[in-house]
Amino acid sequence: MKTERTTLKRLPERGAHDRETIDAILDEGLVCHLGVVDGEGRPFVVPTIHARHGDRLYLHGSPASRALRTSRDGGTDVCVTVTLVDGLVLARSAFHHSLNYRSVVVYGRATRVEDPVEKATALTALVEHVLAGRSAGCREPDEKEVKGTLVLSVPLDEASAKVRRGQPIDDEEDLGLPVWAGHVPLSIVAGEPVADAGVTEPWPGYDLSRARGTG
Amino acid sequence: MKTERTTLKRLPERGAHDRETIDAILDEGLVCHLGVVDGEGRPFVVPTIHARHGDRLYLHGSPASRALRTSRDGGTDVCVTVTLVDGLVLARSAFHHSLNYRSVVVYGRATRVEDPVEKATALTALVEHVLAGRSAGCREPDEKEVKGTLVLSVPLDEASAKVRRGQPIDDEEDLGLPVWAGHVPLSIVAGEPVADAGVTEPWPGYDLSRARGTG
Repeated sequence: MKTERTTLKRLPERGAHDRETIDAILDEGLVCHLGVVDGEGRPFVVPTIHARHGDRLYLHGSPASRALRTSRDGGTDVCVTVTLVDGLVLARSAFHHSLNYRSVVVYGRATRVEDPVEKATALTALVEHVLAGRSAGCREPDEKEVKGTLVLSVPLDEASAKVRRGQPIDDEEDLGLPVWAGHVPLSIVAGEPVADAGVTEPWPGYDLSRARGTG
Repeated sequence: MKTERTTLKRLPERGAHDRETIDAILDEGLVCHLGVVDGEGRPFVVPTIHARHGDRLYLHGSPASRALRTSRDGGTDVCVTVTLVDGLVLARSAFHHSLNYRSVVVYGRATRVEDPVEKATALTALVEHVLAGRSAGCREPDEKEVKGTLVLSVPLDEASAKVRRGQPIDDEEDLGLPVWAGHVPLSIVAGEPVADAGVTEPWPGYDLSRARGTG
Protein backbone atom coordinates (compact mmCIF):
# COMPACT_ATOMS: atom_id res chain seq x y z
CA MET A 1 0.00 0.00 0.00
CA LYS A 2 1.31 3.39 -0.91
CA THR A 3 0.90 5.75 2.02
CA GLU A 4 2.32 9.15 2.80
CA ARG A 5 5.12 7.51 4.76
CA THR A 6 6.11 5.01 2.09
CA THR A 7 6.13 7.54 -0.76
CA LEU A 8 9.73 8.28 -1.59
CA LYS A 9 10.52 11.95 -1.48
CA ARG A 10 13.82 11.66 -3.33
CA LEU A 11 14.70 9.76 -6.49
CA PRO A 12 11.16 8.42 -6.77
CA GLU A 13 12.16 6.51 -9.91
CA ARG A 14 13.97 4.09 -7.61
CA GLY A 15 10.85 3.26 -5.62
CA ALA A 16 8.47 0.35 -5.99
CA HIS A 17 5.31 -0.55 -4.15
CA ASP A 18 4.33 -3.77 -5.90
CA ARG A 19 4.22 -6.76 -3.60
CA GLU A 20 6.13 -8.97 -6.02
CA THR A 21 9.22 -6.76 -5.78
CA ILE A 22 8.81 -6.29 -2.03
CA ASP A 23 8.30 -10.00 -1.32
CA ALA A 24 11.31 -11.07 -3.39
CA ILE A 25 13.62 -8.75 -1.42
CA LEU A 26 12.18 -9.78 1.96
CA ASP A 27 12.56 -13.45 1.03
CA GLU A 28 16.12 -13.12 -0.23
CA GLY A 29 17.52 -11.04 2.63
CA LEU A 30 18.84 -13.31 5.35
CA VAL A 31 18.48 -10.73 8.11
CA CYS A 32 16.45 -7.61 8.67
CA HIS A 33 17.19 -4.58 10.81
CA LEU A 34 14.42 -4.02 13.32
CA GLY A 35 13.99 -0.47 14.56
CA VAL A 36 12.06 0.41 17.68
CA VAL A 37 11.87 3.44 19.94
CA ASP A 38 13.13 2.74 23.44
CA GLY A 39 11.54 3.84 26.69
CA GLU A 40 13.40 7.14 26.57
CA GLY A 41 12.36 7.99 23.03
CA ARG A 42 15.62 7.00 21.42
CA PRO A 43 16.02 4.75 18.38
CA PHE A 44 17.29 1.20 18.73
CA VAL A 45 18.19 -0.91 15.68
CA VAL A 46 19.00 -4.60 15.97
CA PRO A 47 19.67 -7.24 13.31
CA THR A 48 17.40 -10.26 13.51
CA ILE A 49 16.08 -13.11 11.37
CA HIS A 50 12.70 -12.53 9.77
CA ALA A 51 10.39 -14.65 7.67
CA ARG A 52 7.59 -13.57 5.38
CA HIS A 53 4.49 -15.73 5.35
CA GLY A 54 1.85 -14.41 3.00
CA ASP A 55 0.98 -10.88 4.04
CA ARG A 56 2.85 -10.92 7.31
CA LEU A 57 6.42 -10.64 8.45
CA TYR A 58 7.39 -12.75 11.47
CA LEU A 59 10.20 -11.95 13.89
CA HIS A 60 11.22 -13.96 16.91
CA GLY A 61 13.46 -13.93 19.91
CA SER A 62 13.70 -14.78 23.52
CA PRO A 63 11.03 -13.03 25.58
CA ALA A 64 13.99 -11.38 27.31
CA SER A 65 15.38 -9.75 24.17
CA ARG A 66 15.39 -6.02 24.61
CA ALA A 67 14.14 -4.90 21.21
CA LEU A 68 11.33 -7.40 21.18
CA ARG A 69 10.39 -6.80 24.80
CA THR A 70 9.87 -3.18 23.90
CA SER A 71 7.37 -4.39 21.34
CA ARG A 72 5.64 -6.63 23.81
CA ASP A 73 2.44 -5.21 25.12
CA GLY A 74 -0.46 -4.25 22.90
CA GLY A 75 1.73 -3.78 19.87
CA THR A 76 4.48 -1.31 19.15
CA ASP A 77 5.48 0.74 16.14
CA VAL A 78 8.39 -0.86 14.36
CA CYS A 79 10.31 -0.24 11.19
CA VAL A 80 11.80 -3.32 9.58
CA THR A 81 14.40 -2.80 6.84
CA VAL A 82 15.94 -5.47 4.61
CA THR A 83 18.87 -4.53 2.38
CA LEU A 84 20.68 -6.53 -0.30
CA VAL A 85 23.94 -5.01 -1.49
CA ASP A 86 24.41 -5.95 -5.15
CA GLY A 87 27.50 -4.03 -6.15
CA LEU A 88 29.87 -1.09 -6.07
CA VAL A 89 29.13 1.88 -8.34
CA LEU A 90 32.33 3.70 -9.30
CA ALA A 91 31.53 7.00 -10.96
CA ARG A 92 33.92 9.42 -12.67
CA SER A 93 33.31 11.88 -9.84
CA ALA A 94 33.63 11.07 -6.14
CA PHE A 95 30.23 12.71 -5.69
CA HIS A 96 28.35 10.13 -7.77
CA HIS A 97 29.84 7.02 -6.18
CA SER A 98 27.14 4.72 -4.94
CA LEU A 99 26.09 1.13 -4.37
CA ASN A 100 23.74 -1.05 -6.29
CA TYR A 101 21.20 -2.41 -3.85
CA ARG A 102 17.65 -3.55 -3.26
CA SER A 103 15.94 -2.62 -0.02
CA VAL A 104 12.53 -2.80 1.60
CA VAL A 105 11.22 -0.71 4.46
CA VAL A 106 8.18 -2.02 6.34
CA TYR A 107 6.36 0.23 8.78
CA GLY A 108 3.84 -1.32 11.08
CA ARG A 109 2.61 -2.26 14.45
CA ALA A 110 4.21 -5.44 15.72
CA THR A 111 1.95 -7.63 17.79
CA ARG A 112 2.66 -10.83 19.69
CA VAL A 113 1.52 -14.05 18.12
CA GLU A 114 -0.35 -16.01 20.79
CA ASP A 115 -2.31 -18.51 18.70
CA PRO A 116 -0.37 -21.81 18.88
CA VAL A 117 -1.09 -22.74 15.26
CA GLU A 118 0.07 -19.39 13.89
CA LYS A 119 3.07 -19.53 16.20
CA ALA A 120 4.07 -22.96 14.87
CA THR A 121 3.64 -21.69 11.30
CA ALA A 122 5.84 -18.69 12.05
CA LEU A 123 8.57 -20.78 13.67
CA THR A 124 8.63 -23.15 10.69
CA ALA A 125 8.79 -20.17 8.32
CA LEU A 126 11.76 -18.76 10.27
CA VAL A 127 13.75 -22.02 9.92
CA GLU A 128 12.79 -22.26 6.24
CA HIS A 129 13.97 -18.70 5.77
CA VAL A 130 17.44 -19.66 7.02
CA LEU A 131 17.50 -22.61 4.63
CA ALA A 132 14.69 -23.88 2.44
CA GLY A 133 13.91 -27.51 3.19
CA ARG A 134 15.56 -27.53 6.59
CA SER A 135 12.51 -27.61 8.86
CA ALA A 136 11.62 -31.17 7.80
CA GLY A 137 15.16 -32.32 8.58
CA CYS A 138 15.56 -31.32 12.20
CA ARG A 139 13.75 -31.80 15.50
CA GLU A 140 10.68 -29.62 15.63
CA PRO A 141 10.08 -27.31 18.59
CA ASP A 142 8.48 -28.83 21.68
CA GLU A 143 5.86 -27.10 23.78
CA LYS A 144 8.39 -25.56 26.15
CA GLU A 145 10.40 -24.10 23.27
CA VAL A 146 7.31 -22.69 21.59
CA LYS A 147 6.24 -21.09 24.87
CA GLY A 148 9.75 -19.79 25.42
CA THR A 149 9.89 -17.99 22.11
CA LEU A 150 8.40 -14.59 21.55
CA VAL A 151 7.00 -14.31 18.02
CA LEU A 152 5.97 -10.97 16.59
CA SER A 153 3.85 -10.37 13.54
CA VAL A 154 4.04 -7.25 11.37
CA PRO A 155 1.54 -6.72 8.55
CA LEU A 156 2.94 -5.87 5.13
CA ASP A 157 0.31 -3.17 4.50
CA GLU A 158 2.78 -0.32 4.60
CA ALA A 159 5.93 -1.30 2.76
CA SER A 160 8.04 0.07 -0.03
CA ALA A 161 11.03 -1.09 -2.02
CA LYS A 162 13.94 0.84 -3.42
CA VAL A 163 16.21 -0.54 -6.12
CA ARG A 164 19.37 0.82 -7.69
CA ARG A 165 20.94 -1.11 -10.54
CA GLY A 166 23.57 -0.71 -13.20
CA GLN A 167 25.97 2.02 -14.12
CA PRO A 168 26.93 5.29 -12.42
CA ILE A 169 25.11 8.44 -13.47
CA ASP A 170 27.82 11.01 -13.96
CA ASP A 171 27.42 14.66 -14.82
CA GLU A 172 27.68 15.23 -18.54
CA GLU A 173 30.78 17.40 -18.23
CA ASP A 174 32.61 14.52 -16.51
CA LEU A 175 31.95 11.93 -19.21
CA GLY A 176 35.18 12.67 -21.05
CA LEU A 177 37.45 12.38 -17.99
CA PRO A 178 40.20 9.79 -18.26
CA VAL A 179 38.76 7.80 -15.35
CA TRP A 180 37.59 4.19 -15.29
CA ALA A 181 33.92 4.17 -14.37
CA GLY A 182 31.50 1.30 -14.06
CA HIS A 183 30.10 -1.11 -11.53
CA VAL A 184 31.39 -4.19 -9.74
CA PRO A 185 28.80 -6.87 -8.95
CA LEU A 186 28.92 -8.43 -5.49
CA SER A 187 27.32 -11.71 -4.56
CA ILE A 188 27.10 -14.00 -1.57
CA VAL A 189 28.42 -17.52 -1.95
CA ALA A 190 28.16 -20.48 0.38
CA GLY A 191 31.31 -22.37 1.30
CA GLU A 192 31.64 -26.04 2.19
CA PRO A 193 29.35 -27.12 5.04
CA VAL A 194 31.27 -27.87 8.26
CA ALA A 195 29.73 -30.70 10.30
CA ASP A 196 29.51 -30.37 14.06
CA ALA A 197 31.51 -32.74 16.26
CA GLY A 198 29.90 -36.17 16.52
CA VAL A 199 27.74 -35.83 13.39
CA THR A 200 27.76 -39.09 11.44
CA GLU A 201 24.92 -38.26 9.04
CA PRO A 202 25.96 -37.20 5.54
CA TRP A 203 25.29 -33.64 4.37
CA PRO A 204 21.63 -33.72 3.32
CA GLY A 205 22.33 -32.01 0.01
CA TYR A 206 20.37 -28.81 0.59
CA ASP A 207 20.51 -26.52 -2.40
CA LEU A 208 22.81 -23.80 -1.08
CA SER A 209 22.50 -21.78 -4.28
CA ARG A 210 19.02 -21.09 -2.96
CA ALA A 211 20.24 -20.00 0.47
CA ARG A 212 18.70 -16.64 1.25
CA GLY A 213 20.95 -13.79 0.43
CA THR A 214 22.73 -15.69 -2.32
CA GLY A 215 20.34 -14.53 -5.00
CA MET B 1 32.84 2.68 26.32
CA LYS B 2 30.66 0.26 28.20
CA THR B 3 27.50 2.00 29.31
CA GLU B 4 24.20 0.77 30.66
CA ARG B 5 22.77 0.86 27.13
CA THR B 6 25.60 -1.05 25.48
CA THR B 7 25.77 -3.79 28.11
CA LEU B 8 24.21 -6.87 26.62
CA LYS B 9 21.44 -8.27 28.76
CA ARG B 10 21.33 -11.64 27.01
CA LEU B 11 24.15 -13.96 26.01
CA PRO B 12 26.75 -11.53 27.34
CA GLU B 13 29.52 -13.91 26.21
CA ARG B 14 28.78 -12.75 22.67
CA GLY B 15 29.45 -9.12 23.46
CA ALA B 16 32.60 -7.10 22.97
CA HIS B 17 33.42 -3.51 23.78
CA ASP B 18 37.01 -3.28 22.57
CA ARG B 19 37.53 -0.76 19.83
CA GLU B 20 39.62 -3.14 17.73
CA THR B 21 36.68 -5.53 17.30
CA ILE B 22 34.22 -2.67 16.80
CA ASP B 23 36.37 -0.84 14.25
CA ALA B 24 37.02 -3.98 12.17
CA ILE B 25 33.28 -4.64 11.83
CA LEU B 26 32.46 -1.01 11.01
CA ASP B 27 35.22 -0.95 8.39
CA GLU B 28 34.23 -4.22 6.75
CA GLY B 29 30.47 -3.61 6.54
CA LEU B 30 29.63 -1.89 3.28
CA VAL B 31 26.40 -0.36 4.57
CA CYS B 32 24.95 0.51 7.93
CA HIS B 33 21.35 0.79 9.05
CA LEU B 34 20.63 4.21 10.47
CA GLY B 35 17.77 4.42 12.92
CA VAL B 36 16.10 7.67 13.86
CA VAL B 37 12.84 8.62 15.53
CA ASP B 38 10.51 10.52 13.22
CA GLY B 39 8.46 13.58 14.09
CA GLU B 40 5.62 11.41 15.32
CA GLY B 41 7.76 9.31 17.62
CA ARG B 42 7.97 6.35 15.30
CA PRO B 43 11.13 4.49 14.31
CA PHE B 44 12.62 4.89 10.83
CA VAL B 45 15.48 2.68 9.64
CA VAL B 46 17.31 3.34 6.39
CA PRO B 47 20.37 1.71 4.83
CA THR B 48 23.19 4.10 4.02
CA ILE B 49 26.94 4.16 3.43
CA HIS B 50 29.08 5.01 6.44
CA ALA B 51 32.78 5.52 6.98
CA ARG B 52 34.75 5.37 10.17
CA HIS B 53 37.54 7.91 10.59
CA GLY B 54 39.35 7.58 13.88
CA ASP B 55 36.81 7.93 16.66
CA ARG B 56 33.93 9.11 14.51
CA LEU B 57 31.47 7.57 12.14
CA TYR B 58 30.49 9.70 9.14
CA LEU B 59 27.22 9.43 7.23
CA HIS B 60 26.15 11.48 4.26
CA GLY B 61 23.24 12.21 2.02
CA SER B 62 21.39 14.87 0.19
CA PRO B 63 20.13 17.59 2.52
CA ALA B 64 16.69 16.50 1.34
CA SER B 65 17.03 12.93 2.57
CA ARG B 66 14.38 12.23 5.14
CA ALA B 67 16.38 10.27 7.73
CA LEU B 68 19.23 12.74 7.70
CA ARG B 69 17.00 15.77 7.67
CA THR B 70 15.45 14.49 10.88
CA SER B 71 18.95 14.56 12.34
CA ARG B 72 19.61 18.05 11.10
CA ASP B 73 19.30 20.67 13.75
CA GLY B 74 21.37 20.67 16.89
CA GLY B 75 22.00 16.96 16.74
CA THR B 76 19.66 14.04 16.98
CA ASP B 77 19.79 10.68 18.70
CA VAL B 78 20.63 7.97 16.23
CA CYS B 79 21.37 4.29 16.38
CA VAL B 80 23.69 2.99 13.68
CA THR B 81 23.94 -0.75 13.23
CA VAL B 82 26.36 -2.65 10.98
CA THR B 83 25.87 -6.38 10.46
CA LEU B 84 28.03 -8.93 8.67
CA VAL B 85 26.36 -12.29 8.06
CA ASP B 86 29.05 -14.97 8.15
CA GLY B 87 27.09 -18.19 7.90
CA LEU B 88 24.10 -20.42 8.50
CA VAL B 89 23.96 -22.39 11.76
CA LEU B 90 21.99 -25.60 11.35
CA ALA B 91 21.26 -27.16 14.71
CA ARG B 92 19.74 -30.57 15.44
CA SER B 93 16.67 -28.80 16.79
CA ALA B 94 14.72 -26.13 14.93
CA PHE B 95 14.89 -24.07 18.11
CA HIS B 96 18.68 -23.68 18.05
CA HIS B 97 19.00 -22.65 14.41
CA SER B 98 20.89 -19.40 14.07
CA LEU B 99 23.29 -17.39 11.99
CA ASN B 100 26.94 -16.67 12.45
CA TYR B 101 27.39 -12.93 12.36
CA ARG B 102 29.32 -9.93 13.59
CA SER B 103 27.44 -6.75 14.38
CA VAL B 104 28.05 -3.37 15.93
CA VAL B 105 25.50 -1.02 17.44
CA VAL B 106 26.50 2.62 17.85
CA TYR B 107 24.35 4.95 19.91
CA GLY B 108 24.99 8.61 19.71
CA ARG B 109 24.02 12.10 18.83
CA ALA B 110 24.56 12.84 15.16
CA THR B 111 25.66 16.38 14.41
CA ARG B 112 26.18 18.14 11.10
CA VAL B 113 29.74 18.59 9.94
CA GLU B 114 30.14 22.25 8.93
CA ASP B 115 33.93 22.63 8.96
CA PRO B 116 35.07 22.40 5.32
CA VAL B 117 38.25 20.50 6.14
CA GLU B 118 36.45 17.89 8.23
CA LYS B 119 33.75 17.65 5.56
CA ALA B 120 36.34 16.98 2.86
CA THR B 121 37.97 14.34 5.08
CA ALA B 122 34.61 12.69 5.64
CA LEU B 123 33.72 12.66 1.93
CA THR B 124 37.07 11.10 1.06
CA ALA B 125 36.58 8.51 3.79
CA LEU B 126 33.16 7.65 2.36
CA VAL B 127 34.58 7.00 -1.13
CA GLU B 128 37.47 5.01 0.37
CA HIS B 129 34.96 2.97 2.34
CA VAL B 130 33.25 1.91 -0.89
CA LEU B 131 36.61 0.91 -2.37
CA ALA B 132 40.05 1.47 -0.87
CA GLY B 133 42.25 3.48 -3.22
CA ARG B 134 39.40 4.89 -5.27
CA SER B 135 39.38 8.49 -4.06
CA ALA B 136 42.72 9.24 -5.77
CA GLY B 137 41.39 7.86 -9.05
CA CYS B 138 38.28 9.94 -9.61
CA ARG B 139 37.32 13.60 -9.80
CA GLU B 140 37.21 15.08 -6.32
CA PRO B 141 34.13 16.98 -5.13
CA ASP B 142 33.87 20.63 -6.14
CA GLU B 143 32.58 23.35 -3.84
CA LYS B 144 28.99 23.02 -5.01
CA GLU B 145 28.99 19.28 -4.39
CA VAL B 146 30.52 19.67 -0.94
CA LYS B 147 27.91 22.30 -0.06
CA GLY B 148 25.17 20.11 -1.50
CA THR B 149 26.03 17.14 0.67
CA LEU B 150 24.87 16.79 4.23
CA VAL B 151 27.53 15.07 6.33
CA LEU B 152 26.76 13.81 9.81
CA SER B 153 29.24 12.81 12.47
CA VAL B 154 28.52 10.30 15.22
CA PRO B 155 31.08 9.71 17.99
CA LEU B 156 32.05 6.12 18.72
CA ASP B 157 31.90 6.61 22.49
CA GLU B 158 28.91 4.38 22.97
CA ALA B 159 29.28 1.30 20.81
CA SER B 160 29.21 -2.42 21.30
CA ALA B 161 29.88 -5.46 19.15
CA LYS B 162 28.25 -8.84 19.12
CA VAL B 163 29.83 -11.88 17.49
CA ARG B 164 28.54 -15.39 16.94
CA ARG B 165 30.89 -17.94 15.40
CA GLY B 166 31.14 -21.64 14.82
CA GLN B 167 28.90 -24.56 15.53
CA PRO B 168 25.33 -24.83 16.79
CA ILE B 169 24.79 -25.27 20.50
CA ASP B 170 22.24 -28.03 20.81
CA ASP B 171 20.63 -29.38 23.94
CA GLU B 172 22.48 -32.39 25.28
CA GLU B 173 19.52 -34.72 24.82
CA ASP B 174 19.46 -33.89 21.08
CA LEU B 175 23.12 -34.70 20.41
CA GLY B 176 22.36 -38.30 19.44
CA LEU B 177 19.63 -37.45 16.93
CA PRO B 178 20.23 -38.73 13.38
CA VAL B 179 20.32 -35.18 12.03
CA TRP B 180 23.10 -33.42 10.12
CA ALA B 181 24.17 -30.39 12.14
CA GLY B 182 26.87 -27.86 11.51
CA HIS B 183 27.44 -24.52 9.92
CA VAL B 184 27.72 -23.22 6.37
CA PRO B 185 30.11 -20.28 5.82
CA LEU B 186 28.86 -17.45 3.63
CA SER B 187 31.08 -14.88 1.98
CA ILE B 188 30.76 -11.98 -0.40
CA VAL B 189 32.66 -12.16 -3.66
CA ALA B 190 33.21 -9.50 -6.30
CA GLY B 191 32.43 -10.36 -9.92
CA GLU B 192 34.07 -8.95 -13.03
CA PRO B 193 33.99 -5.15 -13.19
CA VAL B 194 31.59 -3.85 -15.87
CA ALA B 195 32.81 -0.64 -17.54
CA ASP B 196 30.33 2.13 -18.26
CA ALA B 197 29.59 3.07 -21.86
CA GLY B 198 32.32 5.19 -23.38
CA VAL B 199 35.02 4.22 -20.89
CA THR B 200 38.31 3.64 -22.67
CA GLU B 201 40.56 3.53 -19.60
CA PRO B 202 41.63 0.07 -18.48
CA TRP B 203 40.39 -1.30 -15.14
CA PRO B 204 42.73 0.30 -12.59
CA GLY B 205 43.41 -2.99 -10.84
CA TYR B 206 41.87 -2.17 -7.47
CA ASP B 207 42.21 -5.04 -5.06
CA LEU B 208 38.63 -6.28 -4.92
CA SER B 209 39.47 -8.93 -2.36
CA ARG B 210 39.75 -5.97 -0.03
CA ALA B 211 36.35 -4.57 -0.97
CA ARG B 212 34.40 -3.91 2.20
CA GLY B 213 32.07 -6.71 3.08
CA THR B 214 34.25 -9.33 1.40
CA GLY B 215 36.27 -10.05 4.53
